[in-house]
Amino acid sequence: MKIVALAGGVGAAKFLSGLVHSVPEEDLTVVVNTGDDFHWMGLYVCPDLDTVTYTLAGRANPQTGWGIRDDSFQVLDGLKDLGCEPWFRIGDLDLATHIYRTEQLRSGRSLSDITRRICERFGIRFRILPMTDSPVPTLVHTTEGALPFQEYFVKKRCAPPVLGFTFQGVESAKPAPGVDEALQAAGAVVICPSNPFISIGPILSLPGLRETLRRIPAQIAAVTPIIAGEAVKGPTAAMMRQLGLGVSAAGVAKLYQDFIDDFVLDLHDEQLISEITALGIRAHTARTLMDSADATTRLAQSVMEIFR
Amino acid sequence: MKIVALAGGVGAAKFLSGLVHSVPEEDLTVVVNTGDDFHWMGLYVCPDLDTVTYTLAGRANPQTGWGIRDDSFQVLDGLKDLGCEPWFRIGDLDLATHIYRTEQLRSGRSLSDITRRICERFGIRFRILPMTDSPVPTLVHTTEGALPFQEYFVKKRCAPPVLGFTFQGVESAKPAPGVDEALQAAGAVVICPSNPFISIGPILSLPGLRETLRRIPAQIAAVTPIIAGEAVKGPTAAMMRQLGLGVSAAGVAKLYQDFIDDFVLDLHDEQLISEITALGIRAHTARTLMDSADATTRLAQSVMEIFR
Repeated sequence: MKIVALAGGVGAAKFLSGLVHSVPEEDLTVVVNTGDDFHWMGLYVCPDLDTVTYTLAGRANPQTGWGIRDDSFQVLDGLKDLGCEPWFRIGDLDLATHIYRTEQLRSGRSLSDITRRICERFGIRFRILPMTDSPVPTLVHTTEGALPFQEYFVKKRCAPPVLGFTFQGVESAKPAPGVDEALQAAGAVVICPSNPFISIGPILSLPGLRETLRRIPAQIAAVTPIIAGEAVKGPTAAMMRQLGLGVSAAGVAKLYQDFIDDFVLDLHDEQLISEITALGIRAHTARTLMDSADATTRLAQSVMEIFR
Repeated sequence: MKIVALAGGVGAAKFLSGLVHSVPEEDLTVVVNTGDDFHWMGLYVCPDLDTVTYTLAGRANPQTGWGIRDDSFQVLDGLKDLGCEPWFRIGDLDLATHIYRTEQLRSGRSLSDITRRICERFGIRFRILPMTDSPVPTLVHTTEGALPFQEYFVKKRCAPPVLGFTFQGVESAKPAPGVDEALQAAGAVVICPSNPFISIGPILSLPGLRETLRRIPAQIAAVTPIIAGEAVKGPTAAMMRQLGLGVSAAGVAKLYQDFIDDFVLDLHDEQLISEITALGIRAHTARTLMDSADATTRLAQSVMEIFR
């Protein structure tokens, strides 16, 4: 059975690192958010794509979840010597990816083509696709004004209360080559435990994509990024609160209710089962905290059992 | 007395590292060749400018003469992991310069403005100017066809016999801001012991520059890059041979005869004095091999004595 996963960054990458134990390499396609892509010192950086790639290659930095393990920061030191104060720490090996990608983009290659080459060189045999080849930068509307995503996320540490999001240019963006085909051919689709607004949201905003998810024969399951009313990591819970939504796994299920069949919520949230079932979604409980490789693999297995 | 030096890369930088002991910081302006600038993985690299900057900052790699001392090569390793085989080894700290410069150029700053900022950050108080703010890439015409300079120089190791040179776009390039002013105000101009074709040649090809050198009141002296019919380093001698010129210090003096007053040749070449004098140029002998810091300082002192 062919599986498609919709993924953001660190949380999704972790979940996928468990999933790959249950899915044959040739059967998995991961569609990754590119809304948080940005320019850093003129280089094109794709944080979610790289986090998924590095994690599946077994080369991610286990402390941060992003960047490359045991990387050095010489170039960053050099830039500081030159009076630059980059607010985004990029390691030397990681930088090689951005230099390569930027140069390839400038020479006319598409992001999906470049991503395929990078995955090959990292020895990844699962298919990793950017959600689109067009830049669709996320703008976060806050009480302090509209902020480019990385400025909101890294520089402002998600502090300004959120009013909404724009994925700039998404109305004319197309899913990257292979995305639609993979969804049409899929037996199952997993929505990774990622932020529904800024990780899965940009993917769902691609013209036609949400309709495709509603229509395809695949069984679609989402894994909660919220446990007992809190996000394990990142601003998901805060955003739900700021947007006036109920901060719970059921609130996330509601955001996906038009296209998911199944929802995996945490054991701590059993009391939400009826609320989710009332949305016409099958609810499943599992231990969703990915606090060890074993726990992550077991969560992925639980999700795969839904599809069997 | 204000001094202007026309400079190429490694040889010039070495000479200048001696000259700065004899010239007050505020009196020296170095005009540097930019004909060998090139793009490396999409980044704008200025080898001669950087060699002069790093050397005068005391941070040059003493083994190679270019690059930064004790630099690491992590990004290069990362690029190799990605299947790139860059034929130009660029270190991590060096790369910071290129990333910074490329980003600043893209944001609309001029090369001379960026160079000034880099020099400030490197603690250099002499004035270093690129010869022009316009790209003027050197094309080396060889028996194997026309080659971009770095391809001829690094990739082909100067092997293909040379037929001539084009400095692309030089006919519409202007000397960088400050170059003409510095030459007009100079009491002395030194042509560093650099390759006359590919280091000094591009500078002299700037529209009007050669005429300026002919007309200004400054006393102008050139230091030979040829000792006993051989270049200490690089393809100068081979080029003279391939171009059908006499391979000697006198041959170099001839290339500059319309604007120099003095020529410094090596002690080994005393027999050439009459040949140089016959060109209407005063000939001076000195130990020109810069094989130690002392020898370099003494050579620079000898040159400064010509101006006193």
